[in-house]
Amino acid sequence: MANEQALTSRAEDFNEWYNSLVLRAEMADYGPVRGTMIVRPYGWALWENVQQALDRRFKETGHENAGFPMLIPMSFFEKEASHVEGFAPELAVVTHGGGEKLAEPLAIRPTSETIIGHTYARWIQSYRDLPILINLWNSVIRWEMRTKLFLRTLEFYWQEGHTAHATSDEAIEETRRMLDVYADFAINDAAIPVIRGEKSEKERFAGAQMTLTIEAMMGDGKALQSGTSHYMGQNFARAFDIKFLDPNNEQKLCYTTSWGLSTRFVGAIIMTHGDDKGLVLPPKLAPIQVVIVPIYKGDAERPAVLEAAAAIKQELAAHNLRVKLDDRDNLTPGFKFNEWELKGVPVRIEIGPRDLQNNTVMVGRRDIPGKEGKQIIARAGLAQRTDDLLAEIQANLLAKATRFRDERTTDVTTYDQLKDAIDTGFARGWWAGDRADEERIQAETKATIRCIPFEQPGGNGTCIYTGKPATKVAIFGRSY
Amino acid sequence: MANEQALTSRAEDFNEWYNSLVLRAEMADYGPVRGTMIVRPYGWALWENVQQALDRRFKETGHENAGFPMLIPMSFFEKEASHVEGFAPELAVVTHGGGEKLAEPLAIRPTSETIIGHTYARWIQSYRDLPILINLWNSVIRWEMRTKLFLRTLEFYWQEGHTAHATSDEAIEETRRMLDVYADFAINDAAIPVIRGEKSEKERFAGAQMTLTIEAMMGDGKALQSGTSHYMGQNFARAFDIKFLDPNNEQKLCYTTSWGLSTRFVGAIIMTHGDDKGLVLPPKLAPIQVVIVPIYKGDAERPAVLEAAAAIKQELAAHNLRVKLDDRDNLTPGFKFNEWELKGVPVRIEIGPRDLQNNTVMVGRRDIPGKEGKQIIARAGLAQRTDDLLAEIQANLLAKATRFRDERTTDVTTYDQLKDAIDTGFARGWWAGDRADEERIQAETKATIRCIPFEQPGGNGTCIYTGKPATKVAIFGRSY
Repeated sequence: MANEQALTSRAEDFNEWYNSLVLRAEMADYGPVRGTMIVRPYGWALWENVQQALDRRFKETGHENAGFPMLIPMSFFEKEASHVEGFAPELAVVTHGGGEKLAEPLAIRPTSETIIGHTYARWIQSYRDLPILINLWNSVIRWEMRTKLFLRTLEFYWQEGHTAHATSDEAIEETRRMLDVYADFAINDAAIPVIRGEKSEKERFAGAQMTLTIEAMMGDGKALQSGTSHYMGQNFARAFDIKFLDPNNEQKLCYTTSWGLSTRFVGAIIMTHGDDKGLVLPPKLAPIQVVIVPIYKGDAERPAVLEAAAAIKQELAAHNLRVKLDDRDNLTPGFKFNEWELKGVPVRIEIGPRDLQNNTVMVGRRDIPGKEGKQIIARAGLAQRTDDLLAEIQANLLAKATRFRDERTTDVTTYDQLKDAIDTGFARGWWAGDRADEERIQAETKATIRCIPFEQPGGNGTCIYTGKPATKVAIFGRSY
Repeated sequence: MANEQALTSRAEDFNEWYNSLVLRAEMADYGPVRGTMIVRPYGWALWENVQQALDRRFKETGHENAGFPMLIPMSFFEKEASHVEGFAPELAVVTHGGGEKLAEPLAIRPTSETIIGHTYARWIQSYRDLPILINLWNSVIRWEMRTKLFLRTLEFYWQEGHTAHATSDEAIEETRRMLDVYADFAINDAAIPVIRGEKSEKERFAGAQMTLTIEAMMGDGKALQSGTSHYMGQNFARAFDIKFLDPNNEQKLCYTTSWGLSTRFVGAIIMTHGDDKGLVLPPKLAPIQVVIVPIYKGDAERPAVLEAAAAIKQELAAHNLRVKLDDRDNLTPGFKFNEWELKGVPVRIEIGPRDLQNNTVMVGRRDIPGKEGKQIIARAGLAQRTDDLLAEIQANLLAKATRFRDERTTDVTTYDQLKDAIDTGFARGWWAGDRADEERIQAETKATIRCIPFEQPGGNGTCIYTGKPATKVAIFGRSY
């Protein structure tokens, strides 16, 4: 629970700041099995808002949700060579069920391409059955013991979209469309200025022909892959025999895609916007957008203040704002301020006896700490003013994070410059290296190619590492 | 997919009718691992509407959602004696992870009381931390090989609420409150006239001191337990050491509850309302409330009809109705009628050239098949009329199901009468037997006590089985 002790500052120890913030803001907790996470109600409420924001977009782009089993026969993983190589080492394996040893061990899904492939092969007969556009909201398990809450846990929550198409063009278009959906959500709802781009071969999803990504810069300058969209070509269709009869009655293999965004994104929100006082949640996703703290001395002042506070709460709620009245009687206003700052509530409304007289309230912005962010606002029209203020905060968070990222992104022309740049952020430079080159860079600097961004300068240049002629720039960074 | 072949009738073979309907209406499919289920998009959309209807009620009654890990140390199950006895035989066990044998095997949750107990013990210190009112939306695994889609599957989807309280009274009140929430949802949203009552000791949840249930009668007269709410007393608090300091600074054990409703309820909707033509979905939960089927001959008539159909669709959608325009050009209207009847869409709107001239449409009700359910409605004010019609259908479904249940519920005074009654429905009679009596009745008749209903005649009578004086009536039935 929130308490008076200050958080470790971000500058002092970013990692410690993050870990203690997640626990103290009651976003998440460790589960009893090493590597697992409990998402607490406040963290889950944020995740629900993420889900709603994405789910609306998925449905608008023609997708439907479904539920697929978590248990997958082990043999399914053998069918796609690079997929098994990527996932076999991370599987959780069920060997006993109902008190008996199973004839074939079962894996808990680390991702559902295999069971989807098996099923789509049964469902698809003709081109009229295509495209299939299905999304799953579920949790998956990838064996992982170095837990970092939200960022790296043995079980995590996510959505996985799985689509099948008649043509390669259509599947590639889908892969791009869903990356754009992620980017639109990240930028406009989470105020995280992500970079859209393609992964290098080395960082590609196991079984994909192309992996697209949105990459975000965290408050320590490190990168976080925040959502990915994969074009599988016919790899999974071949492995699982996903065929259709085209209009000429010829059998063809489908083209498939998959795309996913997980509770990792909650980590991105925390590490992009958070400050030394705690979380700073973007208004569009914040579980509580406005907290009202009544300020009174003793029983004489209390009733009138609480009545006014309740009236304001009702007014804001009627305006479709997510508002909480903190009327706990055993805590001081100062304690409450700290707690709601820790929890990142975008707007705080204080109301006391003087405000009642003046028909005003004191309003504070979480994104601008201290006096600068405080203003007296008239009671009349408060809901609309608060709504406007939330929009202002939303825009300010995006602008701030964009400025931060741009300041810490360096255009580099040499490998030495790259090494300097990635100490504090991203390095962007011409690239014509291969997988082995990238592996050497990673071994030496711990940085990887985050993506080949869609946004390119055009023209050509000299590869910062190999010196070869290059037509594309890449973005390098250390990553979570 | 829907096709021209008729369903097996319910009278002929209810079981076969159900199984083929679930598959052909594309509600669900079998997963590759025996016992598992794929919930297809149409079934999942119905489940999402169930979720929303319940989730809204949970939040209105002060509950918050959270996410708990699916993996639970096996040792946790040993801590509550009757709980382990009930669930140990049904566990799926993970013995290997990340390529290695685990030191302690892990169970996939069959329900989360144990991990919740372990966690609440850490979270709760003082009476100020109480009550904790948390709900989880997830899936659980109980080893089960005799699959019946939605009703009995190895993995199923559900919600499980878990609350902790300072007093027994408060916990019992919560147990009742959540049963009332289920009943309100079942009756008013799903049009299923459930009976609220208490389970006998024999049918109680493993570890509970009291289990409350809502019981529904299916179209074949059998009972389906549709949702349960459990008062645990201090059983789990004792097993997991869930303690709090009361206002007098004394350590006390908490009282806990849990309550769950699962995808089984989708089966209840199908078997309560379905008829020989397919599903009949209650309007409040139907994924598609209105389907528009344009009727035209050739290219001359098509554009004007489709334009009008699209305008109607927009008008209804603007009225917040869930509407689909079936503009597939390769299928006949007759085929479409069959398909949407199979899928249980409450209202069908047909529009053809003559309707355009007359400014009317032809409207059909799914709950009243054939000509009787059809009427010509003016285009002006169509959205409001359709909305009213949906409310009428909703009420009619509930009335019909209530009539059906009441007709098939017999007040019995002897064991022989009971045996007759349960061939077609429920038997209600005075009861003063014990667990052994109930077991004998089950062995002889396959019927169990579905519940001791809250609604009692009062007074007293003679137990139909033991002949002892009795103060309560029980409801007996064969069940799914």
